[in-house]
Amino acid sequence: MTTVAAPATRTERDSMGALEVPADRYWGAQTQRSLNNFRIGVETMPEPLIRAFGLQKRAAARANHALGALPDAVFPAVDQAAGEVAEGKLSAHFPLKVWQTGSGTQTNMNANEVIANRAIEILGGEMGSKSPVHPNDHVNRGQSTNDSFPTVMHIAAAREVTELLIPALDGLRNALSERAAAFADIVKIGRTHLQDATPLTLGQEFSGYVRQVELSVERLRATLPRVFQLAQGGTAVGTGLNTAPGFRERFCEELRTLTGLPFEPAPNTFEAMAAHDALVELSGMLNTIATSLMKIANDIRLLGSGPRCGLGELRLPENEPGSSIMPGKVNPTQAEALTMVCCQVMGNHVAVTMAGAQGHMELNAFKPVIAYAVLQSIRLLGDATASFTEHCAAGIEADRARIDELLHKSLMLVTALNPHIGYDKAAEVAKRAHKEGTTLKQAAADLGYVTPEDFDRLVRPEDMVGR
Amino acid sequence: MTTVAAPATRTERDSMGALEVPADRYWGAQTQRSLNNFRIGVETMPEPLIRAFGLQKRAAARANHALGALPDAVFPAVDQAAGEVAEGKLSAHFPLKVWQTGSGTQTNMNANEVIANRAIEILGGEMGSKSPVHPNDHVNRGQSTNDSFPTVMHIAAAREVTELLIPALDGLRNALSERAAAFADIVKIGRTHLQDATPLTLGQEFSGYVRQVELSVERLRATLPRVFQLAQGGTAVGTGLNTAPGFRERFCEELRTLTGLPFEPAPNTFEAMAAHDALVELSGMLNTIATSLMKIANDIRLLGSGPRCGLGELRLPENEPGSSIMPGKVNPTQAEALTMVCCQVMGNHVAVTMAGAQGHMELNAFKPVIAYAVLQSIRLLGDATASFTEHCAAGIEADRARIDELLHKSLMLVTALNPHIGYDKAAEVAKRAHKEGTTLKQAAADLGYVTPEDFDRLVRPEDMVGR
Amino acid sequence: MTTVAAPATRTERDSMGALEVPADRYWGAQTQRSLNNFRIGVETMPEPLIRAFGLQKRAAARANHALGALPDAVFPAVDQAAGEVAEGKLSAHFPLKVWQTGSGTQTNMNANEVIANRAIEILGGEMGSKSPVHPNDHVNRGQSTNDSFPTVMHIAAAREVTELLIPALDGLRNALSERAAAFADIVKIGRTHLQDATPLTLGQEFSGYVRQVELSVERLRATLPRVFQLAQGGTAVGTGLNTAPGFRERFCEELRTLTGLPFEPAPNTFEAMAAHDALVELSGMLNTIATSLMKIANDIRLLGSGPRCGLGELRLPENEPGSSIMPGKVNPTQAEALTMVCCQVMGNHVAVTMAGAQGHMELNAFKPVIAYAVLQSIRLLGDATASFTEHCAAGIEADRARIDELLHKSLMLVTALNPHIGYDKAAEVAKRAHKEGTTLKQAAADLGYVTPEDFDRLVRPEDMVGR
Amino acid sequence: MTTVAAPATRTERDSMGALEVPADRYWGAQTQRSLNNFRIGVETMPEPLIRAFGLQKRAAARANHALGALPDAVFPAVDQAAGEVAEGKLSAHFPLKVWQTGSGTQTNMNANEVIANRAIEILGGEMGSKSPVHPNDHVNRGQSTNDSFPTVMHIAAAREVTELLIPALDGLRNALSERAAAFADIVKIGRTHLQDATPLTLGQEFSGYVRQVELSVERLRATLPRVFQLAQGGTAVGTGLNTAPGFRERFCEELRTLTGLPFEPAPNTFEAMAAHDALVELSGMLNTIATSLMKIANDIRLLGSGPRCGLGELRLPENEPGSSIMPGKVNPTQAEALTMVCCQVMGNHVAVTMAGAQGHMELNAFKPVIAYAVLQSIRLLGDATASFTEHCAAGIEADRARIDELLHKSLMLVTALNPHIGYDKAAEVAKRAHKEGTTLKQAAADLGYVTPEDFDRLVRPEDMVGR
Repeated sequence: MTTVAAPATRTERDSMGALEVPADRYWGAQTQRSLNNFRIGVETMPEPLIRAFGLQKRAAARANHALGALPDAVFPAVDQAAGEVAEGKLSAHFPLKVWQTGSGTQTNMNANEVIANRAIEILGGEMGSKSPVHPNDHVNRGQSTNDSFPTVMHIAAAREVTELLIPALDGLRNALSERAAAFADIVKIGRTHLQDATPLTLGQEFSGYVRQVELSVERLRATLPRVFQLAQGGTAVGTGLNTAPGFRERFCEELRTLTGLPFEPAPNTFEAMAAHDALVELSGMLNTIATSLMKIANDIRLLGSGPRCGLGELRLPENEPGSSIMPGKVNPTQAEALTMVCCQVMGNHVAVTMAGAQGHMELNAFKPVIAYAVLQSIRLLGDATASFTEHCAAGIEADRARIDELLHKSLMLVTALNPHIGYDKAAEVAKRAHKEGTTLKQAAADLGYVTPEDFDRLVRPEDMVGR
Repeated sequence: MTTVAAPATRTERDSMGALEVPADRYWGAQTQRSLNNFRIGVETMPEPLIRAFGLQKRAAARANHALGALPDAVFPAVDQAAGEVAEGKLSAHFPLKVWQTGSGTQTNMNANEVIANRAIEILGGEMGSKSPVHPNDHVNRGQSTNDSFPTVMHIAAAREVTELLIPALDGLRNALSERAAAFADIVKIGRTHLQDATPLTLGQEFSGYVRQVELSVERLRATLPRVFQLAQGGTAVGTGLNTAPGFRERFCEELRTLTGLPFEPAPNTFEAMAAHDALVELSGMLNTIATSLMKIANDIRLLGSGPRCGLGELRLPENEPGSSIMPGKVNPTQAEALTMVCCQVMGNHVAVTMAGAQGHMELNAFKPVIAYAVLQSIRLLGDATASFTEHCAAGIEADRARIDELLHKSLMLVTALNPHIGYDKAAEVAKRAHKEGTTLKQAAADLGYVTPEDFDRLVRPEDMVGR
Repeated sequence: MTTVAAPATRTERDSMGALEVPADRYWGAQTQRSLNNFRIGVETMPEPLIRAFGLQKRAAARANHALGALPDAVFPAVDQAAGEVAEGKLSAHFPLKVWQTGSGTQTNMNANEVIANRAIEILGGEMGSKSPVHPNDHVNRGQSTNDSFPTVMHIAAAREVTELLIPALDGLRNALSERAAAFADIVKIGRTHLQDATPLTLGQEFSGYVRQVELSVERLRATLPRVFQLAQGGTAVGTGLNTAPGFRERFCEELRTLTGLPFEPAPNTFEAMAAHDALVELSGMLNTIATSLMKIANDIRLLGSGPRCGLGELRLPENEPGSSIMPGKVNPTQAEALTMVCCQVMGNHVAVTMAGAQGHMELNAFKPVIAYAVLQSIRLLGDATASFTEHCAAGIEADRARIDELLHKSLMLVTALNPHIGYDKAAEVAKRAHKEGTTLKQAAADLGYVTPEDFDRLVRPEDMVGR
Repeated sequence: MTTVAAPATRTERDSMGALEVPADRYWGAQTQRSLNNFRIGVETMPEPLIRAFGLQKRAAARANHALGALPDAVFPAVDQAAGEVAEGKLSAHFPLKVWQTGSGTQTNMNANEVIANRAIEILGGEMGSKSPVHPNDHVNRGQSTNDSFPTVMHIAAAREVTELLIPALDGLRNALSERAAAFADIVKIGRTHLQDATPLTLGQEFSGYVRQVELSVERLRATLPRVFQLAQGGTAVGTGLNTAPGFRERFCEELRTLTGLPFEPAPNTFEAMAAHDALVELSGMLNTIATSLMKIANDIRLLGSGPRCGLGELRLPENEPGSSIMPGKVNPTQAEALTMVCCQVMGNHVAVTMAGAQGHMELNAFKPVIAYAVLQSIRLLGDATASFTEHCAAGIEADRARIDELLHKSLMLVTALNPHIGYDKAAEVAKRAHKEGTTLKQAAADLGYVTPEDFDRLVRPEDMVGR
């Protein structure tokens, strides 16, 4: 909670009238009005979104100034103030909830008001006077919430994906890849339908996880080009009313300089404001990544189940006492945190889909919930992946003795006989061994299909793993 | 696909003009028009919905006749024809797709047309002439699609729940309960976080499943009262325009007689036509049941994993060869079919939610997809539950030797020492045993916390299961 | 973020060793370990859950004391400390994230540690010494996380539903009901498929909303009986190992006294710990309520669209400036906040379903995400409903002139002619009027079907609304 | 309905024994066993999947033959029989339900059995004899269900996307683009938050839809590379046991020849069998497309609402009578069918996600439900898009008079004054006009901010649309 019970206030005004705001806060009348009107939940606008607003206002100010649409007298102060928002220095001045106007107007105005008042302060003016810096006429110059908020959503999502999530996934891939290499020579029983199957190496099993994580990054990269396309310049309904000529291009140029990311004007501003399909698509990729991570975490906790009554093939790092009643218990807690995150990401995806499907005419009015859910999903996946990597994946050890014990019990080694005696006879061998509780070799010999010598030659787990 | 390439046709007319329909089909112009206009997918309106339309038209005819709104001359034929629809005899005359008008108007007209033409046939008239029986003025008398289709959705859902799903769940509960009784004395290792925990009996474990299925039925019964409330009588927008006085009540009375189910007029027709919250709620219960069944099926396949390299505590019935390449493999296929059904039910629930949320003013225009998804979910849950019961649950056996072997390996039996030596020392014992690969008894003695004699007295799995 | 950069620390210990915790915090080693191991996201355990832990520990302490399982020497201090947690006085001492162990063990230990240290403080002991009050042996006496956390989830959900959500829904129902009464005599055009339909009163239209909200409360009440059933007493795996005889019943008795809510022991503890179907069901009801509220909010913003180029039948309260670029614009912002909340609730429901479906054997290890998502949904629905009621619903006005203007333009008044000239001729009248841009009366006369005098007598909107 | 009441039967055998199958069907024992064991629902395996099995078996036979692993004596017959399956000639011999083994083993065996028996027939042998063509040893040569079924899922999805869905989307884009061009000069009121906003052209509005559909195709193309990667060659667990050297590459080469699509071996077979992330990703794209189409269809029905009491800017084609009670009513039925399809696609996506997340070790055992849901979604989107294009989009007309009437009423034209008098004064003008029911020009003059002459010069809708 960021609201502050400040005894001192100052008067701020908007087109609906005057009201009091805390004297030590930069926000103005529209922010305060929203605080009063939307007492819903505890979720304030995500930090990455606030910072992206700083970047957006800064790039807009620079573009407007370059194009002659923002006076020299106010530009440096606006630029500085916006920069402070971008760096997170003024985040305590963004108290608004996610659950507000569907366009995010009040958070755009929050940014305009904070930057205007901070710039006024820099310039030695009186806060709340809107002079010499006006929140709408200067800070919001040539902009509308309707193009600015979608732009900010894309900036924040693109930065979180590239700076938080992809590095975390790369880290997991590396850790798993290192484990796969370490396990390359461990032949183990495979399992399909949770039932014993033909063997593979533990390294091969882990290589599947490596590939899933690699593809996760590939999927994000396949989607980012559409996230890099920005609505900015469309203003109220997409026509670009009240923007300076060349603003759209110049804005993206400035933003590229500020972020190092290849943002560009959306080919069609009407689409970019009325729909947020690019974020629904991104959310779909996060959903796919959650699917991948859930598979990996589930496998690892299942292979690590035990210590004595489970599969027990893996030993997971022990990070904390596992039970308040069962002494000495250790649990796969990182896998649990990660799979819980995956559930929330999958749920958020439905929220984003539902919200994305319901735009009307020139505006999708579900922007804040889309921003909230997408940014939460990115953050949770990124953090949980990094935590899982550090506290679990990187430290996984194989229990070679246990793996070997299980491998040699399996009936599915019989598959190696298929090319020699055919599927039907091989099935007979396996069924007989299962029924009589004996070995495959014995059953094959009893049935007269394969001599023990041939069996030893033909059925070698280490030859069945395709290396 | 039920469309028929009939060489002979007859001419049918609606307010937009004339067109040809197959001579051997009872449907009329509006049905044919829909066939031409909606070539989408392969899904035709579900059979239970068609039959429910027969019941609805029959109850309406009887109510109208009793109230003097349907002439003696046409009533018996309409009543008979509607009865034939209710019995499924005319299902081949309902060719329309789910994906049509959002009110289901064309399927209501399909029913009106089929019943009118069949009644005309009974009365010796000429099909397509709308005389002496008119599809709108007689069969649809005092009705609109807008109240009839929701009524039919409720009738179909209520019947499928009570006649298909609840009996299937009762069957599963009985089978599991019988297994729980049979397993009442088998003490086994418990597992939390997939890790070894304190013991319980296999009967206790199964009793949890029994309770989940019992609650499933309780949940359905808690929801049905709202499904029994019908929109019929609201006509176009809920006001009941053009209905005979007393129609709503009489309709439900007739329907109760026809079905044996306690249908009653919805207290508010506006709500009952503009929203389908009762079916969203029902779908939520199906979703909960899917959650329960997925847990049960997952547990059973995990406990039955093996045969030699898994947990192996249960032996599941072997119903078919499990692999096209691995001879002798047997898989938990009934659990797989059931869990796949659960996924589809959970997905359908989102479809129903999305559709249910989007009514506009006096009508929710997503009725067919709601009907389709809810009825598919009920059918799939009912059938899959019955199949799982017959081909899996009822035949599950315990592998007592394996269960006993695992039980005595577990370190979590140490929990029984908590009240005697405290959590911290008990943890020390477990950790030492784990580290040294020894028994708890040995570790406890080595640490000087419990003598072997006391250990044997205090740590008895059969005393730890709370019976 | 609640972690505090405290210079001073004290040493705390658990079964894995010692570590430093901030000196001014009551938490102990296991809480600190979790802080270090789970740096995931920004979401800490919800406040209602923390308070519910206070209630749970207090009821457990009272039950244990009454049953002789908690010494007189420690009981009063534990009781007082737990009470402080229940009142929210110690919430700053619960820093843990949602994304942790799937059983919530570390939050249970957080409660145990905070209460133990606070009780030690009350008794004049040394914090961290575990004496004279031990977090496991005293505060967690006869409990496991595995039964306590589910209990706490149910307590928190039941309290939030009864104290926050139901009152908010009652408030909305009352406001809408009052509006329905005020609009009882306003005859307006109905709309189905968003197309003009037969008339109804605005009061009738609002009565549908009233009914939806009434049913929302009915749905919650239908579900609560299963939420009132508690897992407490099952301890580690459901068998009740290490509980005092009579503990389950006595615990619920104490809790009923503390909360005034009819909690009772779950009939089957195995089900109550291994599955959270009751919360999946509750979430399904929240999802249904979201569906209802979305319909209402969508209707209201659509009927209030304009002011000059929309439907314009309703005037919504103007709460804030609507646009940063379009001066004078006012938007349906409360409807937008509410519908965004509904999207998140629907998404959370999928997260809860996914998490609820994946328990393994004796434990569902997705407890924290279920708690988080369910409690967020309840809070958001409650707050958004209250906000929508206060700032929108209660102040809605009808634009009678606009409503009347539209009503008399409609072609669907022709439906009143059905009983007199039949559906087919009535259709001809409407089509002719539409095509020629004339009135129904004119078209009916031109076609020679109804005289103008009869038309005026037969087609009276005020007679078509069924009052 | 797929069961056949055949009087004559023949005996077929598998490793579990003999049973009778209909004499006029090519399937064998394992298919028949599945028919008996899985009586669940009405959904049989989708036709595109059956045909893809024909392609897969054909490409496998050709590759095996080329590599010397399939004898000359049987190859031509197997090749021909598989070709007949690929062409849909033998679809009546694939009776199995979706809800079966989670690997789809029985449908793979269905294909093996049908092709083997048909090849035996071609070669003059005795059906059921497994000689000279054996379903496992020849038709399934070097294959497992575990690699074949995923391969077939990818083949079917890729073909349906490229041959059905993309062409349908291209058609819609063209129709919308043609409409956008036709509407290029129609200036109309914009709407944000459903409230009047600044103007744009109807052509611009439609250009946003065009872009959404263009992006839909772009999204599919961004995803297809991962769908073109095939698991084939992994056999049982991914190691490729029992495949001929070079089989993977040769198989894809043959398949490319057969389909014209760029299939290639998956870089990691373990991932490609244990997870179906590529199809979860594709489903996410279908979900995004559904989001886009829902927006478009919702807009069009809203803009076409009326005919007299709605927005009425568009006139949609009238395809059928709209009401069984309201004569002359016409509804936006194609938009309704399309949006219902979108709901089902969104629901299916959750089913696919849930199923995709739950693979265990070497196999995801939710393959059939993934195949079913993805293929249904593609088909429904493709068909509904084509239907919507033909029966609605292509025939949309603008009501220019109505559009012009609304445009000139709007208060939001005031935005054009911002750069001249500033946001605050412009807001005053709009509010005054709204309050007094007058024009903006009048209000601006009354307030002394803008002369009528300047107003006429500055506020020109046609200059506000940014062309």
